Amino acid sequence: MTHAHASRMLCCVFSVSAAGAMVLHLVPRCSARLFWASAGWRRTHIQGASVGLKWLGCPRDSYNPLACRRYSSVSGSPEVMLTSERYPVQRLPFSTVSEEDLTAFERIIPGRVITDPEQLEACNVDWLRSVRGCSKVLLRPQTTEEVSQILRHCHKRNLAVNPQGGNTGMVGGSVPVFDEIILSTALMNQVISFHDVSGILVCQAGCVLEELSQYLQERDFIMPLDLGAKGSCHIGGNVATNAGGLRFLRYGSLRGTVLGLEVVLADGTILNCLTSLRKDNTGYDLKQLFIGSEGTLGIITAVSILCPPRPKAVNVAFLGCPGFAEVLQTFSTCKGMLGEILSAFEFMDAECMKLVGQHLHLTNPVQESPFYVLVETSGSSAGHDTEKLTSVLEQVLNSGLVSDGTIATDQRKVQMLWALRERITEALSRDGYVFKYDISLPVEQLYDLVIDLRTRVGPRAKHVVGYGHLGDGNLHLNVTAEAFSQELLGALEPYVYAWTAKQRGSVSAEHGLGFKKKNVLGYSKPPVAVKMMHQLKVLLDPKGILNPYKTLPAQA
Amino acid sequence: MTHAHASRMLCCVFSVSAAGAMVLHLVPRCSARLFWASAGWRRTHIQGASVGLKWLGCPRDSYNPLACRRYSSVSGSPEVMLTSERYPVQRLPFSTVSEEDLTAFERIIPGRVITDPEQLEACNVDWLRSVRGCSKVLLRPQTTEEVSQILRHCHKRNLAVNPQGGNTGMVGGSVPVFDEIILSTALMNQVISFHDVSGILVCQAGCVLEELSQYLQERDFIMPLDLGAKGSCHIGGNVATNAGGLRFLRYGSLRGTVLGLEVVLADGTILNCLTSLRKDNTGYDLKQLFIGSEGTLGIITAVSILCPPRPKAVNVAFLGCPGFAEVLQTFSTCKGMLGEILSAFEFMDAECMKLVGQHLHLTNPVQESPFYVLVETSGSSAGHDTEKLTSVLEQVLNSGLVSDGTIATDQRKVQMLWALRERITEALSRDGYVFKYDISLPVEQLYDLVIDLRTRVGPRAKHVVGYGHLGDGNLHLNVTAEAFSQELLGALEPYVYAWTAKQRGSVSAEHGLGFKKKNVLGYSKPPVAVKMMHQLKVLLDPKGILNPYKTLPAQA
Repeated sequence: MTHAHASRMLCCVFSVSAAGAMVLHLVPRCSARLFWASAGWRRTHIQGASVGLKWLGCPRDSYNPLACRRYSSVSGSPEVMLTSERYPVQRLPFSTVSEEDLTAFERIIPGRVITDPEQLEACNVDWLRSVRGCSKVLLRPQTTEEVSQILRHCHKRNLAVNPQGGNTGMVGGSVPVFDEIILSTALMNQVISFHDVSGILVCQAGCVLEELSQYLQERDFIMPLDLGAKGSCHIGGNVATNAGGLRFLRYGSLRGTVLGLEVVLADGTILNCLTSLRKDNTGYDLKQLFIGSEGTLGIITAVSILCPPRPKAVNVAFLGCPGFAEVLQTFSTCKGMLGEILSAFEFMDAECMKLVGQHLHLTNPVQESPFYVLVETSGSSAGHDTEKLTSVLEQVLNSGLVSDGTIATDQRKVQMLWALRERITEALSRDGYVFKYDISLPVEQLYDLVIDLRTRVGPRAKHVVGYGHLGDGNLHLNVTAEAFSQELLGALEPYVYAWTAKQRGSVSAEHGLGFKKKNVLGYSKPPVAVKMMHQLKVLLDPKGILNPYKTLPAQA
Repeated sequence: MTHAHASRMLCCVFSVSAAGAMVLHLVPRCSARLFWASAGWRRTHIQGASVGLKWLGCPRDSYNPLACRRYSSVSGSPEVMLTSERYPVQRLPFSTVSEEDLTAFERIIPGRVITDPEQLEACNVDWLRSVRGCSKVLLRPQTTEEVSQILRHCHKRNLAVNPQGGNTGMVGGSVPVFDEIILSTALMNQVISFHDVSGILVCQAGCVLEELSQYLQERDFIMPLDLGAKGSCHIGGNVATNAGGLRFLRYGSLRGTVLGLEVVLADGTILNCLTSLRKDNTGYDLKQLFIGSEGTLGIITAVSILCPPRPKAVNVAFLGCPGFAEVLQTFSTCKGMLGEILSAFEFMDAECMKLVGQHLHLTNPVQESPFYVLVETSGSSAGHDTEKLTSVLEQVLNSGLVSDGTIATDQRKVQMLWALRERITEALSRDGYVFKYDISLPVEQLYDLVIDLRTRVGPRAKHVVGYGHLGDGNLHLNVTAEAFSQELLGALEPYVYAWTAKQRGSVSAEHGLGFKKKNVLGYSKPPVAVKMMHQLKVLLDPKGILNPYKTLPAQA
């Protein structure tokens, strides 16, 4: 199967449900493809045979009625419980969609008002199949003006709206909680302009990240962000959720790389801040309000983003470290000696290595160690970069920071090394039920919680593992057990959140809050901040029609 | 004179006033020092003798009563006209400071309530000596709690407050317009923490940028921003004005590098978002509201900022280009071939070269060309970087993009090449009265306005020149004349602003709006955006006591 073919697929993975039964999940296109590197080569695919995935022929556009039908027809799994039944949430007094409303929408976007229940099913359920709304209508505008007219109508009629991009979110932010109208950006997928001197791309919000990446690669540029879900996720959704991803260490936050936004406000007003300027200090930077606000303050319709030139060389080193202190010192050494070419610094503990060996039969390329780090460089000269990386390796080996290490410069070995880190998630899911946490901590405390939890949960867990983007201070903390256990959950929560709060960490490093995590906001933000967030919401969306029940906890 | 000595000075420059008379200006400490490079070497000083500067012994802390007195006593120039007399601005109905208010302040910050008129003079006038307020009181808190108590009192009493950092702004944002209380951050100058693995610095708002740079250099890191005014400007002011500066091309915007802020709101509430996390997607990113809002929404009291490792090598190339199209293509080539080590890409036109030759006797190191570019690299390997830069030079020479070029690797020559670019301002001021514009444009239109203006103003101007940070799309457009001319001004404004607006550029790339440019906001932002800015101001500062008359135009 060619990549081009594979990337057009949805795939299903089987995992153990809360009750211990096998459950079918639909994952976003390409989330199963572990990494598509900046230099244009593929690191690795999870092959259907080797990791138990079944590829299903489903077109790219998940809002295509056909896509929705297939999505539905292949699921065949127990129906996802309605969010309103699983969670203690009350419907707010919004209007319900009437025949007159449908007629009005049909006038605005003829032929793009979807009400067929079968077609709506995929858009009502998140890809993790953990939350489900019961929206009766999906709108598919193509232009900003159409979005504006739709919102003007909804605002007037007090109809709630759920903006939806690629529906690849992790926290239930992209599907309705009740019967909110789903406003999809899928047909807003045009590149508006690209400037090959400045590297500034302007495009509609519904452009799929991978398609933008391909567009740019042909022009010797790359997107400043890359995600596992790139084959499905929309750039508008990436910006609305302030996505982090694989290039964060090198190219930084979207708050720096997004130069302009066009946004439709709750009442249909178009806010055009779609400038393509690197520097602009005229007044308050309004676009920042919409980056990371998960569609609760406005609907992003177009994005202007600064794209870096495509690196010419990518190298990877995989190292074993005798302790976490040495991992941190190795990071310092890499930052100092690799500086500008350091593009990833990932770590994993010995438990992770054990699991990828046990469940996936991957071979540890270095001698057994308590910790492992993966260092990636991306630069403009293969020779220079290899020389720098070799110097680093000599230095960390000679100083005892690293007990063993290997460097990959050819694509196959690079892929093999990345697989050790990237397939941890998969190995974990084969180990049993997984409790997952994605937190930011001051880098020096990054591993303490893992050690602490091992003692706390004792034999109730099979494994407590820590890995993640050390370079970004982002820990993936995972706890596996034979099956879901309320007792184990009680030992983990709110303990993990409280522990994180004590270290002034973030209880959601990059996934956002959406519906599922909105109530843990207070662990990372003080009451004064939460209050101001509510005030901003009221200012920009006084009727609360935009993506209700998301991001902010219900007010007392 | 040692650098350490020189940097402790204020300096005076003489320029031609609107009426053609010589006027004394006080410039911020170190603004006369052209560049202090990241690697720890000095590029060049403007020597007193060679450029007509007179150094005056004035201590660092410009709020030191002694400093204020000296400032006053040495000025000896015609008194700066009161802003309220020069501009059509009405005092808003704030209270005036009473004896009871002073007693209350004295209770909060004993011994740090300054009312001596002589001491107040320096703080009432901007360093350009273009605007002047008549504040009767200067408050010098040391802690956030003190700032909070002061604002709580002012809010209750409806007293207007002018936050002031290093008072190095370009647009009159840092001095009172009428009798606003001046709240200085000068004594809030403590480093709170620095983490040498993550490179995250947390400090109080009043830390002087240069002192932070020195603190970091000793630890092998650098600040992600550098400014001419670094010897005076405060990091809180840098953040409040979203300062750009010399490292912008490489390290990006403060919106990406500032990780957390502590802010005191108009009513004295402390908003603590001073986290030190690279990734945090919990709720709206409130700190962004305060970056670049010029103290009109809250007073920044502490900053958390991500600092890059110190580069080990810095190289400079100076190139002559046959046309502006070739300048753009050279930029593309440099981005492609230098990628991660490119740290500056500056351009200047032949008129600039003529002026630095004529007025400063600097020698053009390459053959005469219509345009010149300065390319700087900062990297972790001197050998690699030189090799890359040499390859670029070969490529651009062979392809005809560049007609002549030279590379400097030793410090002296690097300084000499930078002087050609950095001393343009000085050469211009020797050419006569200077009309200055600092605008952002799409990079391909960057020079069109210069050509356009030459035709438009004809012989009314001596020179119309263009230079600036091409890498950031930031044009410095300067027009010189024998003396100030209302007719010439009429030919330039609002034409320059309207032209910029037509290209969707920014009428203030990095200087902000402050008092002097607040009325041109509408050239770069649509009415919907301006309205929303006003709404945010009302939400966060309902009484409008924070830095009134600044940033936003008065509402109709």
